[in-house]
This record gives sequence, C-alpha cells and structure tokens, in this order.
Amino acid sequence: MAASEFDLIAEINERLPAKGERVRIPSGDDAAVIEMGGASAVSVDAVVDGVHFRFADFGPVAVGRKALAAGLSDLAAMGALPGEAYVVVAAPAELEDGALLGIADGLAEAASRCGVTVAGGDLVSAPTLMVSVTVVGYEPEDGRLVTRSGARPGDRLAVTGRLGGAAGALALMDGVAGPSPELSEAILARQLDPAPRLREGVALAAQGATAMIDVSDGLGADAGHLARSSGARLEIEVERIPLQEGLAELAGAQGAAIELAASGGEDYELLVALPPDRLEPASDAVAKLGSELSEIGYVVEGQGVALKLPGGGEIEPHGFDQRRGSRSGSG
Amino acid sequence: MAASEFDLIAEINERLPAKGERVRIPSGDDAAVIEMGGASAVSVDAVVDGVHFRFADFGPVAVGRKALAAGLSDLAAMGALPGEAYVVVAAPAELEDGALLGIADGLAEAASRCGVTVAGGDLVSAPTLMVSVTVVGYEPEDGRLVTRSGARPGDRLAVTGRLGGAAGALALMDGVAGPSPELSEAILARQLDPAPRLREGVALAAQGATAMIDVSDGLGADAGHLARSSGARLEIEVERIPLQEGLAELAGAQGAAIELAASGGEDYELLVALPPDRLEPASDAVAKLGSELSEIGYVVEGQGVALKLPGGGEIEPHGFDQRRGSRSGSG
Repeated sequence: MAASEFDLIAEINERLPAKGERVRIPSGDDAAVIEMGGASAVSVDAVVDGVHFRFADFGPVAVGRKALAAGLSDLAAMGALPGEAYVVVAAPAELEDGALLGIADGLAEAASRCGVTVAGGDLVSAPTLMVSVTVVGYEPEDGRLVTRSGARPGDRLAVTGRLGGAAGALALMDGVAGPSPELSEAILARQLDPAPRLREGVALAAQGATAMIDVSDGLGADAGHLARSSGARLEIEVERIPLQEGLAELAGAQGAAIELAASGGEDYELLVALPPDRLEPASDAVAKLGSELSEIGYVVEGQGVALKLPGGGEIEPHGFDQRRGSRSGSG
Repeated sequence: MAASEFDLIAEINERLPAKGERVRIPSGDDAAVIEMGGASAVSVDAVVDGVHFRFADFGPVAVGRKALAAGLSDLAAMGALPGEAYVVVAAPAELEDGALLGIADGLAEAASRCGVTVAGGDLVSAPTLMVSVTVVGYEPEDGRLVTRSGARPGDRLAVTGRLGGAAGALALMDGVAGPSPELSEAILARQLDPAPRLREGVALAAQGATAMIDVSDGLGADAGHLARSSGARLEIEVERIPLQEGLAELAGAQGAAIELAASGGEDYELLVALPPDRLEPASDAVAKLGSELSEIGYVVEGQGVALKLPGGGEIEPHGFDQRRGSRSGSG
C-alpha cells in the first residue's frame, strides 16, 4: 500500500507551512525561488538515527522537530531572523509512509513556531534514517549578524536558559530515575522538542554581543570554538552555570549535574560574550522574551577554556564529536 | 592516527575553493554569511552509498564530484548562475580520513569547474556514507529563471547532449563488456565525473525556453514531471533520442540502448520546451558552448508522456524512485 514517491512527496508538501513572503516559487520545481536581499546566514546540519537520536525513543514527530531546531539554533547564534529551510530526509525503504508524514509534521510544527518556511526538500532511500537541514536567515534591518570571533578580553560571558537538560533527557531515556513527573517531562522536552533561541539571539545582537555560539557540542567544547575563533581565553566559573531544574536529582549529585551541564551538548542555548556594561541591558532584553541570561565567566588574554571549580581546580571540557559519534576531549 | 573532528574539518576546508564575491564570512562560524541579491534558486539533493553510488566502484573523489554535480544540475534546469553550495557529509566512523579528504577534493574539483563556492558544511557520523548538498544559484541580471511549468501545446521538446551514458556506466561497473576503451571511459565518466549543464541552462533560458528539467530520474519520468507541472502532454519520438556513443554496442542491441536512454537516470542533461521558432537559435547557442541540442518531440494538449516508437507503438516510461531506491513505473 506504499504510495509512490511523488504522491508521498505531494502529501508531505501539504503538511509543510504555506509559502513565506520571500518565496516566489515553493518546493516542487527543480529548485525553490526565493527573493533574497542583503546579508543572509546559511547553515547546514544533520541528525542521524543512532547518533543524534534514537528513532524508537523519539518517534517521527520529535525527529522532525529536532532536525529543524538544530539548524535554526545556528541562525540564533548569528542573531539572524529565520527565513527558509531546505530538508533532505534519507529513510530506509521499509520505513512506513506514516512515519515520514510524522517527520513532516514535526518539521512543520517547529517551522511554524519559529517563523521559518520549509521551501524545498528531497526524499531519498538510505539504510539509516537521517534528516539534513539547510537553513537561511537574514540580517535584521536595524541589526547585524554576530560571529564567534569578536570576543575581546574584558568581555563577560553569559548563557541563555539552563544547561544539561538535553544530556539529562538521554539519561531518562536510558532508564535513569527522574525527578518529579513534571520536571522529568521538561527535561525530556530538551531532546524531543528543543527550542532554538532565535528571538534571544536577535536581542543579544542588538544589545551589543561581541560573539555568540549555540551550545550544541557541549558548553566546554563550544566555548573552545569561540575562544579559538576570537583568539582569546574563556574562563567559566562552573558553579555559576545555570542547571536544568531537577538535574541534580536525576544525576544523583550536584557535581554530576554540573558535569552534564558543562559537557552535555544539544541544549541549543546561546553562549554570548558582551562588554561589561551591556550585560544588564542584555539580561533585561532576554527576560522580556520570557527567558533568562546568566553570567558565567569572562574573556581574558590567552587561549583555550578553563572550567573553574570553586575550590580552585578545573574540570576538563568534553564535547560531542560529530564525526566519531562519540564523546571526546576538546583541545 | 585519526585526527580530531575539528582538525579534520580544518583540513577539509583548506581543500575547498576560496571564498566567492558574495561570501562575507565563509564556513567555520555558526553559519556562512552571504550577500544575496535578487531571486535565488535553492535546491537540495543527496547521494547515498549503495543507492546512488557504490563507494567501492566510485572511490571518494568521484563521490564528491557526483554529489555536487547532482545538486548543480537542478540549478542548470532553472537557468540559474551557480552561487554557493553547502555540504553535509555523513560518514561511518571507520571511514578513513583520507577518504573524507578525497570527497572534499572531488567537491572542490567540481566546484571549481562549475564556478560554485562551497561556503559551508557539516560532518557527522552515520552508518552509511551519504553526501547531502544544498546549492544556491542566482537569476542572471538580463535573464530569468525557468520552471517546469511553462510548456505549452505547440512547443518543441529538445534535450542537450546524449542520454543513457549514466545507465551504461552502471552496466560497465557490473562487468558488462564495453565498446572500445575510449568510448567505455567516456561512458564511465557519466557516473564518475558528471557535467551539469549550467551554461547550457542559462543559454536556453535566454533563448526563450518555456520549461526545463534535468534528466535525473530518467527521461520518461522527468518528462512526466514536466508534463504534470505544465498541464500538458509530452510526445517523444524515441528514435530521435540522442544516444551516448557506444551505448548500442554495450547494451547489445539498439532497442536495449534506447531503453537505457529513455529510462536510465542521472545523465544530468536538460530536457527543454521551446517555441518552434526558438529551436534553431537555441541549438546554435548550445553548439557555441561545445554541446548539442537535439529535437526529440513536442508538447500537445492533454496529460502524461508518450514515448513513441517508429512503428506506431509506445514504450512504457520507467524511472528511478528515490524513495524506494528502485526502478518503478512513472504514472
């Protein structure tokens, strides 16, 4: 009863949001035609079954949501306004059409919530389920895009929201006992329904952010990327890292929770460098969006990242190695 | 001796072409930043080991070339000028770094030849090698982008180059005896080093093409897409289909060669509809680019596609079903 490729694609297209104002010709031709203007931020990301999610734990809708959120998080880290997304779904031939439509539903849900148009896509056969997403965002008219490379000694470091939830969610999926049902559900949502910080990114850019990156590989690893790009050293006071609520209970100890928050990736929060006098207005701007901004450290001369413990020691930053699909130390 | 993900990505980036004139910030930040202007054509495509290529037969460089060519062929079919490409390589952890660098070399070679900039990318772990490519092209200043939907009854149908070579190459890889070594090499190149018809696409658009599509699923299937989008019927005289040189010898019979040319996909030639008086100037324009344009049929009222035999019968159009990874009838 499998529909033909073309019927299925037509059905998938129906589930994806209507065309945006820049879309002259939507998906369905050789290419989508978009009226682009000014500076655009473009990023590609992919999530793979067994590496970035487990289909059995996620189900199709959450796979679609996560795939798009991971891409949009890169736009958030540039302070870009979301524009269009282009999606390749590579799926085993035996995957039911209903699952593919569920992935489309998840993409549509995340797209609608984030104000992005899925303007094109491709569906191919592959032994493993994988969703690859290209996102295009735009420089705000009265704003500017923020890179990883502008952090300067003297800047303060801050992070949006709370960290460690996405790593905690994986532990819950592995059967680790959680905190209360409400807190456990909120932790699971960090994997099953992640929220890219698009509005926060634009607000932080407007407030004078000198550098931004999204926390996808893990705070320590992503701080390392930012330090390298900026040619500066990042010092983070680990006791100031804002922890996902209920994480300590789940992890069994405060120290273990801090480890999850410092090394677990995929929280899709923003790590931002700001001049000291911009920290308070930036916090106010983020608070107005219903989120929070926590100061966690500072930028100094030098290179690399220090995750400083209150006693005076340091913890070794680890991160997620996308290539090896495994945790690894980050240099 | 495997390099870390970040070292490897740095090495890959080194092999990819320098930044284009529109690229304000190249790969390496959260997103590339591109100065886009006017109408852009955007397309996504993916090639998967065992479905669109066999790594053992292709080797890494040809995988990179084919992945990019498949994407660029969609831009050619719009008559777009090539701009930027964004690449996700999903590779098994055990694939050697040298193979990944080879894929980068193949991407770089095709990018350089086609005038496209690889402006961003991602490298992820997956059980199966897969390369997903998003391409962005631009509307020529004095031209226009051509869709699949503008063919009108009375238009003539033509195709660039020669068909059946890509299907013939797969037969050669399967051990079927080929024609002369020179002809066999040219046939193999249709898979290992495909040439998207970018300049031909722009020329055909300028010459008044009413509709275009690239031959990726197979002439019959792609003609079906064009017929459906245009709300018209396409009649193709199979004896006029230009055959890859040596194909009849390889296929064992002229009829079998025609079958390969009509149903085999991945030739990345362009099928174009033109008003009758535009056919000759369009042929001249394509000839000036060192290629050829062959008239193969016409557009009439109705729907669907007829592949007409000289005797009066028809052959059933087949195509490549990307979703199932198998050949299927096209409706």
